[in-house]
Amino acid sequence: MKEYGIIMAGGGGTRFWPLSRKALPKQFLNLTGKDILVNETFDRLSGAVEKENIFVVTDALYAEKTLEMMEGRVSKEHILEEPAARNTAACIGYAAMEILKKYGDGVLCIVPSDHYIREEALYARTLRQGMDLAKEKDWLVTIGITPDYPAAGYGYIKSGGEEKAGSAVICRTVEEFVEKPSEAVAEAYLREGGYFWNSGIFIWRASVILRAFEKLLPDIYECLTVIGDATGSGREKQILREVYPRIPKLSIDYGIMERADNVVMLEGTFGWNDVGSLDAIALLHQKDAGGNVGVGKHILLDTEGTICYAKNKLIAAAGVKNLIIVEAGDAVLVCPKEKAQEVKKLVEQLKKDGKEEYL
Amino acid sequence: MKEYGIIMAGGGGTRFWPLSRKALPKQFLNLTGKDILVNETFDRLSGAVEKENIFVVTDALYAEKTLEMMEGRVSKEHILEEPAARNTAACIGYAAMEILKKYGDGVLCIVPSDHYIREEALYARTLRQGMDLAKEKDWLVTIGITPDYPAAGYGYIKSGGEEKAGSAVICRTVEEFVEKPSEAVAEAYLREGGYFWNSGIFIWRASVILRAFEKLLPDIYECLTVIGDATGSGREKQILREVYPRIPKLSIDYGIMERADNVVMLEGTFGWNDVGSLDAIALLHQKDAGGNVGVGKHILLDTEGTICYAKNKLIAAAGVKNLIIVEAGDAVLVCPKEKAQEVKKLVEQLKKDGKEEYL
Repeated sequence: MKEYGIIMAGGGGTRFWPLSRKALPKQFLNLTGKDILVNETFDRLSGAVEKENIFVVTDALYAEKTLEMMEGRVSKEHILEEPAARNTAACIGYAAMEILKKYGDGVLCIVPSDHYIREEALYARTLRQGMDLAKEKDWLVTIGITPDYPAAGYGYIKSGGEEKAGSAVICRTVEEFVEKPSEAVAEAYLREGGYFWNSGIFIWRASVILRAFEKLLPDIYECLTVIGDATGSGREKQILREVYPRIPKLSIDYGIMERADNVVMLEGTFGWNDVGSLDAIALLHQKDAGGNVGVGKHILLDTEGTICYAKNKLIAAAGVKNLIIVEAGDAVLVCPKEKAQEVKKLVEQLKKDGKEEYL
Repeated sequence: MKEYGIIMAGGGGTRFWPLSRKALPKQFLNLTGKDILVNETFDRLSGAVEKENIFVVTDALYAEKTLEMMEGRVSKEHILEEPAARNTAACIGYAAMEILKKYGDGVLCIVPSDHYIREEALYARTLRQGMDLAKEKDWLVTIGITPDYPAAGYGYIKSGGEEKAGSAVICRTVEEFVEKPSEAVAEAYLREGGYFWNSGIFIWRASVILRAFEKLLPDIYECLTVIGDATGSGREKQILREVYPRIPKLSIDYGIMERADNVVMLEGTFGWNDVGSLDAIALLHQKDAGGNVGVGKHILLDTEGTICYAKNKLIAAAGVKNLIIVEAGDAVLVCPKEKAQEVKKLVEQLKKDGKEEYL
């Protein structure tokens, strides 16, 4: 059976402002100092899926930029352009339909473009196990990450009893998907056990997920059918542009994962982080004796637990603690690490103030 | 009797980095949004002394820049160039000798180039009173500022009993100059009364201060005599360049004020600040409801008591308190307001690290 990799590179990421901008969404950021996130994702995924079978789904706005920034990793044909941002259900449904119609059924290994993985070999091995499962069974496989700490910033998967699959891969049934909990609840999850972080990594056959759309999201499925039926008609692009923007904005979690009865979970122990806000930069770099992380030119005196990210200028800090300081493009950001989420509000405020030039 | 204004514009000011640089010392900074400090000083001083009688003493390095930045306020002849930085005793002795030899004796009203004055009319009136005193008496007049709060960052003048001068100006004898006290001692000074901030403003006749040099600093006086004797010889510049760098580095306070027996003090109630470090910027601007001061482009969310000074970029701050954030040239500075003094150490560290390009 064919195997495909699908990288979801939607765009956005206002919590990484001023590094990320409208014209430079998060997947194009080089946060590690090695490469941009989407390229790291591609290279990592190619440990589990043949390179020439990897696709990137992105907003049409970013298609050209993606082609350019990925430096030959994918061809134009392997960039699936969304005419509008319609959340993950539309994105995944579209990719599944497109691949099924153009290349035939196969296992899809679907990963977000902008996450961090500590152990890449273990990650690839886990994905391969998931693909083996999805080949044999009509299951919707997802990866649940073994929690390191009681994170309040992640959604959780509550797993049920273990179930042994035919290929000797151990996977778990899923009882429930739960939204980001309070810290107290997250602590209880950790104590109780059986809770895993929802990684947003999905593995299933194109035909299996489309059947789930048909059953659980018939309106979306109809749109996908119209799009799929246009394949080879010469009017694909036009139909896509007409139909896609009408697909309801729905996450795959909410639309399918929480409601389907054939969901199973593979445990991911490879070290994962969703790189959700600027404070995650600390995770991607060596810390100095004061627990500081510096990217770019910086000088720190009597400073602790601080992230300095300088694109062009020298950042000099004295006597500060647990701050995030970012200099990029035409802006400088300063906020406490524990308020990294507030950056989103800053961006909203800039938008409200009509300061589009900074977005 | 002739009256002269002398502005001491020595240079330096590493505590204003990254606004101030080697090539742009503090007197050239526009901290108020109106004009650069030395121009504000000139305009203010011209309320007490005729413009055409105002001189600026500065390091030869900055002579051209001074001429340019002062935009016609002074002519080249009124910029007295120090071949090297030798502290205030040398600077004042040189200016006194130069003026005495070239223009004849007169009252010198000597002010630093980089201070803040709240009430300019009252300031000018106080200087005029000082000049009246200095005309009648062979006194060394200084201005002692009535303290607003127990400042630990200023030197103090302990005044003695009152003394009425001939021209009906009330002035005080001086008992002692005291170094920057601890906060507890500063509080005791304020309770006790009779202590004033040492403003670094001096008023005396050229002949009177030179007599004090002769008596108290005979070595420096000898150098000044050699410099003065060269006047009109055509070799002035050469002699100055040879002799000046050999003058010991000494402050006028330490060399003369603390030791002379003809020092009197006029009380200054015009509102004064030495603008000694970046936190003084807060004093020079309207505060918003959160007690923040912003110069240049900035956006603040949930931020209190913070100074944002942006030369080129947008400074965005969220959830921070009592910080100084400065973006200027090739650098960004972040430090707590109460650690504004530490900026000097940052600059020293940059120097030690050989990062001359940032100085």
